[in-house]
Amino acid sequence: PWRSNRVGTGKINRYFMSNLTTTSDPIRNRERVLLLTPLARFHQGYWDNLLNLDYPRELIELGFILPNGKEGETPARELSQALQKVQTGSIKSRFPKVTVLSQDFGLSTSQIEAERHALKKQKDRRSGMAKARNSLLLATLNTRISWVLWLDSDIIETPRTLIQDLAKHNKDIITPNCFQRFGGNQIRPFDFNNWHESDTAIDLMENMSDDEVVFEGYADIATYRLLMVYEREAGGDPNVETMLDGVGGTSLLVKANVHRDGAVFPTIPFYHLIETEGFAKMAKRLGYQPWGLPNYLVYHCNE
Amino acid sequence: PWRSNRVGTGKINRYFMSNLTTTSDPIRNRERVLLLTPLARFHQGYWDNLLNLDYPRELIELGFILPNGKEGETPARELSQALQKVQTGSIKSRFPKVTVLSQDFGLSTSQIEAERHALKKQKDRRSGMAKARNSLLLATLNTRISWVLWLDSDIIETPRTLIQDLAKHNKDIITPNCFQRFGGNQIRPFDFNNWHESDTAIDLMENMSDDEVVFEGYADIATYRLLMVYEREAGGDPNVETMLDGVGGTSLLVKANVHRDGAVFPTIPFYHLIETEGFAKMAKRLGYQPWGLPNYLVYHCNE
Ligand SMILES: Nc1nc2c(ncn2[C@@H]2O[C@H](COP(=O)(O)OP(=O)(O)O)[C@@H](O)[C@H]2O)c(=O)[nH]1
Ligand SMILES: Nc1nc2c(ncn2[C@@H]2O[C@H](COP(=O)(O)OP(=O)(O)O)[C@@H](O)[C@H]2O)c(=O)[nH]1
Ligand SMILES: [Mn+2]
Ligand SMILES: [Mn+2]
Repeated sequence: PWRSNRVGTGKINRYFMSNLTTTSDPIRNRERVLLLTPLARFHQGYWDNLLNLDYPRELIELGFILPNGKEGETPARELSQALQKVQTGSIKSRFPKVTVLSQDFGLSTSQIEAERHALKKQKDRRSGMAKARNSLLLATLNTRISWVLWLDSDIIETPRTLIQDLAKHNKDIITPNCFQRFGGNQIRPFDFNNWHESDTAIDLMENMSDDEVVFEGYADIATYRLLMVYEREAGGDPNVETMLDGVGGTSLLVKANVHRDGAVFPTIPFYHLIETEGFAKMAKRLGYQPWGLPNYLVYHCNE
Repeated sequence: PWRSNRVGTGKINRYFMSNLTTTSDPIRNRERVLLLTPLARFHQGYWDNLLNLDYPRELIELGFILPNGKEGETPARELSQALQKVQTGSIKSRFPKVTVLSQDFGLSTSQIEAERHALKKQKDRRSGMAKARNSLLLATLNTRISWVLWLDSDIIETPRTLIQDLAKHNKDIITPNCFQRFGGNQIRPFDFNNWHESDTAIDLMENMSDDEVVFEGYADIATYRLLMVYEREAGGDPNVETMLDGVGGTSLLVKANVHRDGAVFPTIPFYHLIETEGFAKMAKRLGYQPWGLPNYLVYHCNE
């Protein structure tokens, strides 16, 4: 059970970090979740889904990071309107803390650039995303937080019980399988960043210079990694767990202590991996094992 | 000039990180400094020196992390008493924010263990220190902070103008030279973690497994690195700058954005380096250059 991990007056705040629990029954133990979203586009479906989560609202703090300059204006306005509505509503329905950051660095999200640069651009883009995630994390993680839920702004459908369903596995890092709906009732794999390492990729990386990166999901680099999206069994037990070596950030539950221990999102190649995949590697190096749930699905939007 | 980087109500905090400046004239630009100390022992000399810093008090936030359990009791009591005195004093003399963390992990600081384990113990100890620094950083770094000053609790003498003297160089990472007074009027080198990489060390590391670490200052590993402590010229210009590859944490000024970018203290070998030395390496990989001031001295206590 939870005990206050703060004593003292407002002038001097004393925290006993060992009183902070991170358990398989986070609601009963009143564990606080920091829900973090890098947000380049505001999707109503994401917001509706977020408001629909049935984890106690008073235990969820929200953090967003938006692109700077012109690019950030529309998402900032849309997010603000959505937030205002909730945060001026009944006290019970408000989030205890909401932080919105405008990043202080540019980050090209343009998708219309020449295809031949796609890989080079991917490195810059993912590196920028890592920077955004780190800035957001360092600005919002406080001493009360037990869990960090990374949720991309284009995840528009999850089970309402997402947080407790993931937390119940009591893993340091855990992620659902991210799919996409299309053509009526069909679904298809979406997030290729949840994977198991392969000998081919290991060999590939061994012969690379420190600055080179391997990305998953590109036809020109055959890694033969086993991707979690292909491990799903239709109708399979949603509680099936699988150990992962790389993870994506579409919806990723992390024990806050993993981040406090220094596991962040590499902006430069870390064992030839960056951003969320690099995070998984770094966490593993620190002794934390990432897990995935092949049969527990969340959905990326489709436009 | 500084502009508020916060807008909105307490319910929704919006921050424009690009309004946060980090300049060579931090007092004029009203830049906030986060002074962080991992503190296993409370030294009155450290505290007196800290209170003596003439950077505007209202621009300094303090953060401490203490050992857990029995080990942390004495320093916690001594630090509390010292803090209470200041924070209940005149409003003008108070620090705007003080955070005291008790770490949630053990960390053996005992020095009486068998010498043959010294190197192995050093790895564990430095790894624990890295963990402590990361936890402290992630708990205290907020969106108002421009600079982070790492100051060890056994640094008992610095120029009163330490912060502005270091900031004036406008470097991403900068450190004074750490010496120790002894035998009356003499001084001797103390912190060997500020160094320039050597070819010998590079060769050494090339043949190591990923988990091996090179520590500086151990006779059994001859790295032939050039140490900043030996670069000092008595009576030399205190503004002389030198580029470093490894840094210590005795008194280290870091632009907060370097940390926000994901440069933390590796608890596990990062290019065969951990803690502050690993931080320097990580920062360099991220594109930030650490600097040292060979002729600008601060003093470690001597007992
Ligand atoms: N702050 C910020 N967020 C971004 C930026 N680009 C994308 N995002 C967000 O980061 C997440 C992942 O980006 P996305 O483009 O969906 O990546 P993909 O799904 O892997 O193609 C989403 O929540 C985006 O809204 C950016 O430039 N700045
Ligand atoms: N929180 C915490 N701080 C520690 C611990 N051990 C040392 N420190 C602090 O970390 C800093 C560096 O440690 P110290 O023993 O002085 O290292 P050295 O000067 O390199 O030998 C000092 O400020 C210590 O008070 C520990 O176990 N926990
Ligand atoms: Mn997406
Ligand atoms: Mn010391």
